[in-house]
Amino acid sequence: MRYGFLGPETTFTHQALLQALAQHAPEPGFAGDEAVLVPFASVATAATDLLAGELDALMAPIENSVEGGVSGTLDVLAATSDITIVAEEIVPITFVLASREPMELAEVTQVASHTHAQAQVQGWLRAHVPGASVVPASSTAAAAKELAAAPVEEARGRAAICSPLAAQHFGLTVLAEGIEDTRGAQTRFVLVTRDGRIPARTGADKTTLVVQLPHNRSGALLEALHQFQTHGVNLSRIESRPTGDTLGRYSFSIDIEGHLADRRVGDALRGLRRVCPVVHFLGSYPRADGLRPATSEATSDAAYDAAHEWVVALTRQISGR
Amino acid sequence: MRYGFLGPETTFTHQALLQALAQHAPEPGFAGDEAVLVPFASVATAATDLLAGELDALMAPIENSVEGGVSGTLDVLAATSDITIVAEEIVPITFVLASREPMELAEVTQVASHTHAQAQVQGWLRAHVPGASVVPASSTAAAAKELAAAPVEEARGRAAICSPLAAQHFGLTVLAEGIEDTRGAQTRFVLVTRDGRIPARTGADKTTLVVQLPHNRSGALLEALHQFQTHGVNLSRIESRPTGDTLGRYSFSIDIEGHLADRRVGDALRGLRRVCPVVHFLGSYPRADGLRPATSEATSDAAYDAAHEWVVALTRQISGR
Amino acid sequence: MRYGFLGPETTFTHQALLQALAQHAPEPGFAGDEAVLVPFASVATAATDLLAGELDALMAPIENSVEGGVSGTLDVLAATSDITIVAEEIVPITFVLASREPMELAEVTQVASHTHAQAQVQGWLRAHVPGASVVPASSTAAAAKELAAAPVEEARGRAAICSPLAAQHFGLTVLAEGIEDTRGAQTRFVLVTRDGRIPARTGADKTTLVVQLPHNRSGALLEALHQFQTHGVNLSRIESRPTGDTLGRYSFSIDIEGHLADRRVGDALRGLRRVCPVVHFLGSYPRADGLRPATSEATSDAAYDAAHEWVVALTRQISGR
Amino acid sequence: MRYGFLGPETTFTHQALLQALAQHAPEPGFAGDEAVLVPFASVATAATDLLAGELDALMAPIENSVEGGVSGTLDVLAATSDITIVAEEIVPITFVLASREPMELAEVTQVASHTHAQAQVQGWLRAHVPGASVVPASSTAAAAKELAAAPVEEARGRAAICSPLAAQHFGLTVLAEGIEDTRGAQTRFVLVTRDGRIPARTGADKTTLVVQLPHNRSGALLEALHQFQTHGVNLSRIESRPTGDTLGRYSFSIDIEGHLADRRVGDALRGLRRVCPVVHFLGSYPRADGLRPATSEATSDAAYDAAHEWVVALTRQISGR
Repeated sequence: MRYGFLGPETTFTHQALLQALAQHAPEPGFAGDEAVLVPFASVATAATDLLAGELDALMAPIENSVEGGVSGTLDVLAATSDITIVAEEIVPITFVLASREPMELAEVTQVASHTHAQAQVQGWLRAHVPGASVVPASSTAAAAKELAAAPVEEARGRAAICSPLAAQHFGLTVLAEGIEDTRGAQTRFVLVTRDGRIPARTGADKTTLVVQLPHNRSGALLEALHQFQTHGVNLSRIESRPTGDTLGRYSFSIDIEGHLADRRVGDALRGLRRVCPVVHFLGSYPRADGLRPATSEATSDAAYDAAHEWVVALTRQISGR
Repeated sequence: MRYGFLGPETTFTHQALLQALAQHAPEPGFAGDEAVLVPFASVATAATDLLAGELDALMAPIENSVEGGVSGTLDVLAATSDITIVAEEIVPITFVLASREPMELAEVTQVASHTHAQAQVQGWLRAHVPGASVVPASSTAAAAKELAAAPVEEARGRAAICSPLAAQHFGLTVLAEGIEDTRGAQTRFVLVTRDGRIPARTGADKTTLVVQLPHNRSGALLEALHQFQTHGVNLSRIESRPTGDTLGRYSFSIDIEGHLADRRVGDALRGLRRVCPVVHFLGSYPRADGLRPATSEATSDAAYDAAHEWVVALTRQISGR
Repeated sequence: MRYGFLGPETTFTHQALLQALAQHAPEPGFAGDEAVLVPFASVATAATDLLAGELDALMAPIENSVEGGVSGTLDVLAATSDITIVAEEIVPITFVLASREPMELAEVTQVASHTHAQAQVQGWLRAHVPGASVVPASSTAAAAKELAAAPVEEARGRAAICSPLAAQHFGLTVLAEGIEDTRGAQTRFVLVTRDGRIPARTGADKTTLVVQLPHNRSGALLEALHQFQTHGVNLSRIESRPTGDTLGRYSFSIDIEGHLADRRVGDALRGLRRVCPVVHFLGSYPRADGLRPATSEATSDAAYDAAHEWVVALTRQISGR
Repeated sequence: MRYGFLGPETTFTHQALLQALAQHAPEPGFAGDEAVLVPFASVATAATDLLAGELDALMAPIENSVEGGVSGTLDVLAATSDITIVAEEIVPITFVLASREPMELAEVTQVASHTHAQAQVQGWLRAHVPGASVVPASSTAAAAKELAAAPVEEARGRAAICSPLAAQHFGLTVLAEGIEDTRGAQTRFVLVTRDGRIPARTGADKTTLVVQLPHNRSGALLEALHQFQTHGVNLSRIESRPTGDTLGRYSFSIDIEGHLADRRVGDALRGLRRVCPVVHFLGSYPRADGLRPATSEATSDAAYDAAHEWVVALTRQISGR
């Protein structure tokens, strides 16, 4: 099995993939030991390889608690109906300060990192290593890798800001962890495949859709949302994306609580398909947080089945049937 | 075939039954020549005979444009699930002035009728036969029958206010028609049977339900109405009836546009059955006015079938199915 | 002060009026000692006297837990906008068996009552006074009055089925109380006045409306109900009444929880007035059961006031204002 | 008056600003001749200057028909309540091929532009100047400026891909216009000020809001959208933005049809303010397309005023007022 991920190695996407492999190994679409992990420069190029059959699965970031939806991934998911989400992973976005050999913070004279990561830790740097100079690197992974490869002498006094995975991967010593100025940021990742198989219902599942509305007006969005409400289906995410043809036209990327195998989800999808010109089903898969949705008796499978049987029985009484 | 109706003979219910027999003769549940028509003093007693198998069908008034729902009929329909509405008839409520032999209005000296009918024509009487005395009768039918049976001499100068059917039935001469002070009143009647067979879809049908709501609050009624709206099903009648157990508890007698065989109606019924503790299906039958409901593409049978096929196909992709 | 009620004396309506006078005496529109109580044969005739200034107030039944809305009263309320409901009373519908002098049940040989009341106690009669003959009276009050007026000798062995108030009023001895076969029936009464003054808010109030919908379709009823839902206003009663012009046209008689002085009620009324061709306000008055509605923070007066101030402040920033 | 814009000079934002100054000159917040136009490297830095009083107004892109909402601008607008949108401009995204001196397309040997623009015209380049080499520039404006500054000899055979405004601004000759491969792309810009004055209603207006929902569930979005629907207010744009605190929390950037001075808009805002924890009003301003919203009689100012007067009159009848 070949797994693509948004690289380079030791990115948070890499970590999400390792998490998924560790947890879901025995399930369909996963394979532990023989797994080959392939970094990609962009989700779009990895998706091309996936569709071409050169990858079996692909891990990609879909949503960030600070910056919102990840456009690159959302657009890839919206563009094709041949890709299915089979798992989600949530990874805390946290940074460490790491060095070649153990040392005191007071000994750190130079800190290397990618600009983006540096912006997230600058408060900590000012407070804890105020005298150190800051040196840019092409990525946090590159900063860690370079430091690991440096001769011991040259590495003295130098540290890198990187992910916990990068520190571990390149054999660095962690001097401080959780050094980001704002705690609690998370990124959500999805593992997608090409074979169209949908994981079985676990009872704590999520379903992802891309929906295009009939007209660009409040009524259409309300009508679509009513299809969910009528069947007691909650939304856990809704994001607009432009359709690209004209100003003010959007599609909506939506996560709902529940699995295609839930009768209430199946019926909500049927309703949505009727009232919306485009509905892409992107997958039903276990929730990373394991939460089970609160459902009422009126939206249980049993209620749907009983109501269905009732109508079927009545229908048999129609003359000529 | 034995048909009951709310009597005595020549009532508007009688006329509704004759209309139904004339129009629907070849359809299931109808039989022309061999039909036996039986008048009843109340809908409740006729319904008892119907359920006991002594009648094959029963015509009863359900709604009057002036006085609203006919409680007696609505309560009978709400009380049992063994009765099915198979046809509706609408009869204009109109009166004639009729006599034994032809004469001028100026010659009329005495007018007989039931108090209720008299109240509806008193303006006309004042204007057109101001000198005539008014004599009460036990029913308009009785007034007509008695006049028809009177010797010619005794009938001179006498007239009866009755239904057009009564005048015709008892061989009277119509001196004036449409003499009611307020024109346009109508009564709607339903023909009910016991065998449970539902007439085939015609494309211009109506469906009658009795629905009990889960709680006595605006939210519950809204939720029930949403089940119709979601499927593009219009209501043509909604009436509240007390459930009889406590103040403020109602069931609703509802007519919707469409037939059980319409996918949108079937799905609305499924939804209703889930959210309401009690839903009685009372029948799908051709509309008396022949109007076809305005439906959108999203609520056509084709749209329901396509959406259903889509979900079924997706469901096949679930692992382990 | 002259108070009309649906008579004769000792009816449940009479009792409702006595209850109201006892409870609300010091409030506007009520007067204790000097009150003159006038029985009427119908609500319509009493309403005519009220509008003519010959009565100050009128007590009338509006809703019965067994039979539903009282058409006579609902139609009077719908027909005029000069009448205001200022109080409601709920009276349990219960019967007693009463006699001239104390005696054992075994000694009862004859029971007098109105047919309607008898039907509600026949199970009890069969069980407890199986040997007694049943004699019809023109009303339960008449049965009680006649028994009270009979010479002691003639009254021996005779009993009357009547309201507790009738037994008390005519000085009879109660042999058994609560003899109705079905317990818990209640009737709701309203006290109406002509002067248009609305009782002050108590915090546990009800408001009564008559609403006519723009079109005869589910959409219109939904739109009207949404006006209540948007403002968190619950309905405690909704009943349809035909408008009288054509089949399938209704007005709705509605009770909502809350007082005109509540901001959420005022705003719901504003919305309703916009979307419905006819909205009659029939009164805001204290609830008989004293229950306070459960409201959320978003529908408190404070929330309405804050939102209003915000919009007013923004509006001041518009150029040229 | 000092106007900032997203630079460098001759960007589409620059053009949007020139359009606005040409059209709206006499209105409040605009000043023609004395206008000073200042390019900025980012919307965020320009906004800082605006809030500091160093700018009077700022033009910024808010929405692109291909890429959707412009995050930088949306986040600036969401972050402060001291900024007001006073105008919108829509600019077609179109490119020209321009040269120093007139020449034939066949004579073009070298084409300079920014990578981003090149990507949008590469089909046209292959078809019309297949032999020309492509040279990168730091911006389309820089490509045009450099070509304009080159000695005539050096400029021979050279062309630049740039905006029509850049060609005009730098005195270049347009060899071909509308050379983008996909036609019809547009960007929407907003002009924002700091003084809080809201332009007067024109009848064809738009209002922009940022709304945060109470809970992250479908019900909350529905409830918010109902506030618009209840008042007949259409949405012309809705976009989600993460709130930044946790996964799955969003605020919504919303454009609605209508002006704060419209009663229906004012009442929708009041409702929204009650049910949502955060509502930012960003401005009411004339629509670039001049379209007037289709409103019904029930949502006219007259309907709101009549309903309001009715409730006010009723309220005066409450005892003690």
